[in-house]
Amino acid sequence: MVSDGIREVLDSFPHRDWAESEEDAGPIRFAMVGLGWWTRDQAMPAVADSGRCETTVVVSGSAEKAEEVADDEETVEAGLTYEAFQDGEARDAYDAVYVCTPNARHLEHVEAAAEFGKAVLCEKPMEATVERSEDLVDACEDVPAMIAYRMHTEPVVRRARELVRAGAIGEPVHVHGDMSQSIVGWGADQWRLDPDLAGYGTSVMDLGIYSVNTARFVLDRDPVSATATMRSSHDYFAEVPDEVAAFTVAYEDAILASFTASQNADLGSFLRIVGSEGTLLIEPAFHGECTLELSVGETTVEIDSPEVDQMEEEFEYFADCLLADREPEATPAHGLVDMRALAAIYESAETGERVEC
Amino acid sequence: MVSDGIREVLDSFPHRDWAESEEDAGPIRFAMVGLGWWTRDQAMPAVADSGRCETTVVVSGSAEKAEEVADDEETVEAGLTYEAFQDGEARDAYDAVYVCTPNARHLEHVEAAAEFGKAVLCEKPMEATVERSEDLVDACEDVPAMIAYRMHTEPVVRRARELVRAGAIGEPVHVHGDMSQSIVGWGADQWRLDPDLAGYGTSVMDLGIYSVNTARFVLDRDPVSATATMRSSHDYFAEVPDEVAAFTVAYEDAILASFTASQNADLGSFLRIVGSEGTLLIEPAFHGECTLELSVGETTVEIDSPEVDQMEEEFEYFADCLLADREPEATPAHGLVDMRALAAIYESAETGERVEC
Repeated sequence: MVSDGIREVLDSFPHRDWAESEEDAGPIRFAMVGLGWWTRDQAMPAVADSGRCETTVVVSGSAEKAEEVADDEETVEAGLTYEAFQDGEARDAYDAVYVCTPNARHLEHVEAAAEFGKAVLCEKPMEATVERSEDLVDACEDVPAMIAYRMHTEPVVRRARELVRAGAIGEPVHVHGDMSQSIVGWGADQWRLDPDLAGYGTSVMDLGIYSVNTARFVLDRDPVSATATMRSSHDYFAEVPDEVAAFTVAYEDAILASFTASQNADLGSFLRIVGSEGTLLIEPAFHGECTLELSVGETTVEIDSPEVDQMEEEFEYFADCLLADREPEATPAHGLVDMRALAAIYESAETGERVEC
Repeated sequence: MVSDGIREVLDSFPHRDWAESEEDAGPIRFAMVGLGWWTRDQAMPAVADSGRCETTVVVSGSAEKAEEVADDEETVEAGLTYEAFQDGEARDAYDAVYVCTPNARHLEHVEAAAEFGKAVLCEKPMEATVERSEDLVDACEDVPAMIAYRMHTEPVVRRARELVRAGAIGEPVHVHGDMSQSIVGWGADQWRLDPDLAGYGTSVMDLGIYSVNTARFVLDRDPVSATATMRSSHDYFAEVPDEVAAFTVAYEDAILASFTASQNADLGSFLRIVGSEGTLLIEPAFHGECTLELSVGETTVEIDSPEVDQMEEEFEYFADCLLADREPEATPAHGLVDMRALAAIYESAETGERVEC
């Protein structure tokens, strides 16, 4: 009966199907490494709201900023410079680190944390290049580690994966995805526009990774090859190739995807997966709020579920993995597969040739 | 005032901004060449409803079919075989031809019609290959001729072009488009699956052309280069490379597009144009009904206008061009630009290299 089905959807949609520990287990005590706006406005409030986590240490390039943030946050015991953190200061005050620095600074902090035996939650893209990402994988060999793909714990994305796995759209055939925003208003002096800090580029590294990885997660298939065309014309993008990028990714089983990403376009995002029998649309997809639409034949179901705090879900999930002593799904080895795909996309744009991931 | 703006939208949205002749001018008398389901179920009813056109001759490979259709339609004076048509039979009974045969049969009928001095409306893709399309351009040098891009006279698409031209989304940055359907239910014996009749392939030739050309029309920019990946695995698609295709097209001014097309997927289509300040979405786009959505900042306007008979609009437009003695926008030379883009897409899929259009 449709009423049973609707009831089932309403009851099960937003649930944390991954949870094994109690909601007030822990807390896992975090050192926040890198105190940019994302850490302060998104990650730290999420941790403060979560039952399983707590921020006890904050780490910044600037001693003043570290102290200021430490003073503002009741649970924080120490505000450290990067140097003090790397020297192992206050290492008894945290169990895990959240690394949210420019891409090319991830490795040094992850290596230090792993050396101290701490668990690692590292922002994506995991590093600036494939080589440095391989080093990051090696560094985490003996500690629990996860790359911070917040879409993995977004209920809409998890339900989308369940639907695809259950055959709701038949066999997946092709995929469209976009994530775009404008960072021009943020000024020219941004690490995202500096290849020494950002890596291969900006739009695909920072935004395109959402389409590449979320499609991979929902499809349960890895990227195989890529083609790409990029363009930079605005002054701000003089050092990076991808003010805007259009690229295709072939996934396993020859599921073909067409993506775009731009750091200088109207804010928006979507992920559409077309199967042999139906179509699944997540829109908006990657900027916080998510809505899911499933069409099969003439019937469309749209599910407008409560917006979750994606960072809280992510921290809770990572803490749950630590508390239940299991491996997170997005290991560094998982992230490395994306890094190879991103590298292939940039290489294809430069050479004009299809590149294996 | 918003009320004035809304009134203006409501009043102007569905209008035929191209019309120069009276609605009951003419009629232009058409010979329908090729009597497949599209001609009989779509084109002929549209012509019967139109004020400026009339079907007076029908032409088929089968004498029986030609006679049967001729008998069914009051206005039809003659039912001809292809041979009789090419011999010039009943040539005084029509002013123009509508060619809707398999792609690789367009040229011979267009050449015959042009030789008799008749105006030519030829279905898209205009022929099977670039070379044959060039011959078709040459054949039409001295007669009025148009390639049948029905999206050009769809009011939603024309209004989208006006909005882009007026800067409603700022500078266009990137584009997504898809057209997919399943032709597997139609049986294995289809000319669309036979490269001798279809040309380079099936999904991009038959469906992808909608995204490529409509984006081109709305953007007022031509394709410059393409990258592509294709796959055929179902038995039916053994002779063509593109059961499904994902491809990028760079347009002039480096506007980058990501497209897909599949003849073996869930029915659907959309065209999304993202600019520096807003986003324009046509969805559904290419299967008859069209809806337009324009988002700028936090405000979205959705315009759900009456579904027009796209074939009637197209025939009326072509007849209007003939009656007003002006050149249609989609000349054979216009169509040839698309054929070069399609050829580039297929070549890129085969070689793995970015190909100039």
